[in-house]
Amino acid sequence: MTPDLDQVIANITPADPDAIRAALSRQSHLTKPPGSLGRLEELSVQLAGIFGTEQPVLRDKTIVVATGDHGVVSQGVTGYPQEVTRQMVSNFLAGGAAINVIARQLGINLVIVDAGTARPLPAHPDLRMVRVGPGTANITAGPAMTPTQARQCLTSGIQLANEAALNGADLIGVGDMGIGNTTASSAIASALTRRSPEETTGRGTGRNVHELQHKIGIVRRALSINQPNPDAPIDVLAKIGGFEIGVIAGVILGTASARRAIVLDGFASGAAALIAYALCPYTRDYMIAAHLSAEKGHRVVLSHLGLSPVLDLGMRLGEGTGAALAMPIIEAAASCLSDMATFSEAGVSNRPSGSQVARST
Amino acid sequence: MTPDLDQVIANITPADPDAIRAALSRQSHLTKPPGSLGRLEELSVQLAGIFGTEQPVLRDKTIVVATGDHGVVSQGVTGYPQEVTRQMVSNFLAGGAAINVIARQLGINLVIVDAGTARPLPAHPDLRMVRVGPGTANITAGPAMTPTQARQCLTSGIQLANEAALNGADLIGVGDMGIGNTTASSAIASALTRRSPEETTGRGTGRNVHELQHKIGIVRRALSINQPNPDAPIDVLAKIGGFEIGVIAGVILGTASARRAIVLDGFASGAAALIAYALCPYTRDYMIAAHLSAEKGHRVVLSHLGLSPVLDLGMRLGEGTGAALAMPIIEAAASCLSDMATFSEAGVSNRPSGSQVARST
Repeated sequence: MTPDLDQVIANITPADPDAIRAALSRQSHLTKPPGSLGRLEELSVQLAGIFGTEQPVLRDKTIVVATGDHGVVSQGVTGYPQEVTRQMVSNFLAGGAAINVIARQLGINLVIVDAGTARPLPAHPDLRMVRVGPGTANITAGPAMTPTQARQCLTSGIQLANEAALNGADLIGVGDMGIGNTTASSAIASALTRRSPEETTGRGTGRNVHELQHKIGIVRRALSINQPNPDAPIDVLAKIGGFEIGVIAGVILGTASARRAIVLDGFASGAAALIAYALCPYTRDYMIAAHLSAEKGHRVVLSHLGLSPVLDLGMRLGEGTGAALAMPIIEAAASCLSDMATFSEAGVSNRPSGSQVARST
Repeated sequence: MTPDLDQVIANITPADPDAIRAALSRQSHLTKPPGSLGRLEELSVQLAGIFGTEQPVLRDKTIVVATGDHGVVSQGVTGYPQEVTRQMVSNFLAGGAAINVIARQLGINLVIVDAGTARPLPAHPDLRMVRVGPGTANITAGPAMTPTQARQCLTSGIQLANEAALNGADLIGVGDMGIGNTTASSAIASALTRRSPEETTGRGTGRNVHELQHKIGIVRRALSINQPNPDAPIDVLAKIGGFEIGVIAGVILGTASARRAIVLDGFASGAAALIAYALCPYTRDYMIAAHLSAEKGHRVVLSHLGLSPVLDLGMRLGEGTGAALAMPIIEAAASCLSDMATFSEAGVSNRPSGSQVARST
């Protein structure tokens, strides 16, 4: 049954404040100097709030890799032919892409989704077909898709998140593949953060300053032709988005409504997160920014969302590779909070409340 | 049989330049835009050089956690009593510390080493006793240890690295526990990088500016009393070092001589790395800086070594926790290089050599 979008959004609630308080208190009793696990402590407290317990136990990890094509590639915004989207989906199914290699190593389940490549792939047992269309239309000439298609992206994503949660995933990551999708992501980022295309547009797979200037012009034209309404996120998705971006936004909504942690990847995931956040600000409580992409606009996106990335490895591949690499660190954060001994359990002296220096010098 | 220190050092050779060249070439054929895996690509090329193959396969992961006490705690440089070193060793053996929790989760073998706590622990099957002494002497009054003890630290560490390598470890991490050891680490960092104690001294587990000023004074006194010779790293270790720091320096030398990758943790590991690097600059080819510690002097150490940290999580716990968290990322780097499909294997179109934009607009 197709989920009811408005009802799912209405059901998303903030993280549990009692569990957050209990986790903060528990952190102060664990056998380490206070704050010495840095970001791990912050993550652990967030996870406590998401899962509603001061001792969160994370079970499975899943990454949904959504793929789709973009009509805007006709405007020469990328260094690769459109056909590469479809070829990379085949590579995902054959296990040869970076996300396959990393997911195998880290024990992450992958769900490969065709949200709308230009030319459909043959059926494959590991390929989830939620094709919303044969690639989006050219956003410099009109809207990417219809409002109905935009809603269909979101409900498909919600359903994928529900399935992952039902299958035991507590960490649900998102990833993207779509030749041309940094252009759509830049347009979404400009529309929803109200920053200029110069600030949200990077090189993508392009190679030089000339190509970048060209791409900034394309983003500007997409915005001026379509006039997306920043107060209507589904309008933004329909006019300048992408099928895979919409599905990812749906996965984010579905994950928050299932009270699981959502692990964002790079720039396209970030654009999707802007849409989900605009639809329901509580989704942010469930978001973990896995990494800072080398793609320029990602910093603007994370700043708008108020998220700080776990990793900064100069990556800009997409596919969920950044999300995957952050997952062991997120798991470690939960394990430390839940499984470390307290000072009293371990018989370790806690720091005296007075100043040691004052007494011993 | 005790390894011969000078012979081990003489046997350390640079990383394999042919394997590095082959790995760089292989990277350019993998199904991703060139450079899009960022730091992972650099790590993979380094690993190729260490293991002498363009398709490195990493087997086991081990972290050697060396512990020891410091006479300088009598000067009031820390927020915890000296007894905590020994209590934390018990916590390591019971599995309740942060490094235990993280190592279990990530499948890392731990080797817990008593390099010289003030009061020996009872024998335990999981505790390696290489006690060089009952804690170092107070470095504000004279040398920490004798030159013979300093060499004993190094040969013990080499032996531990050899054992780990023989047991199948390809990634060998190091970690430390020793109340007072940030003071010794700051003194070593100042001696070997020739930067002032103000630049190398942070708060450690201390709490306020007053305590920090006091600690800087202690580091300055240790340097002026002992006059360590920066061109004689064993002299530096003996005069202002620590038993656990010396053992870690030995693990680094042994790992480089066994041609395995050494994963450095935070500030104390960094001080040990300065000693190993001063003894043999080729050791740097084998070093991976897992993270940037929040402890102030660590940045100075990494800059002197020319290393850039994989992670920056605001951590300052030691124990090898930073080293552990970087290991899955290092493994992912190797796996991507070795296991990803090439463009031709996957039938994916590579980027055309001419400019796509120029032709399509």
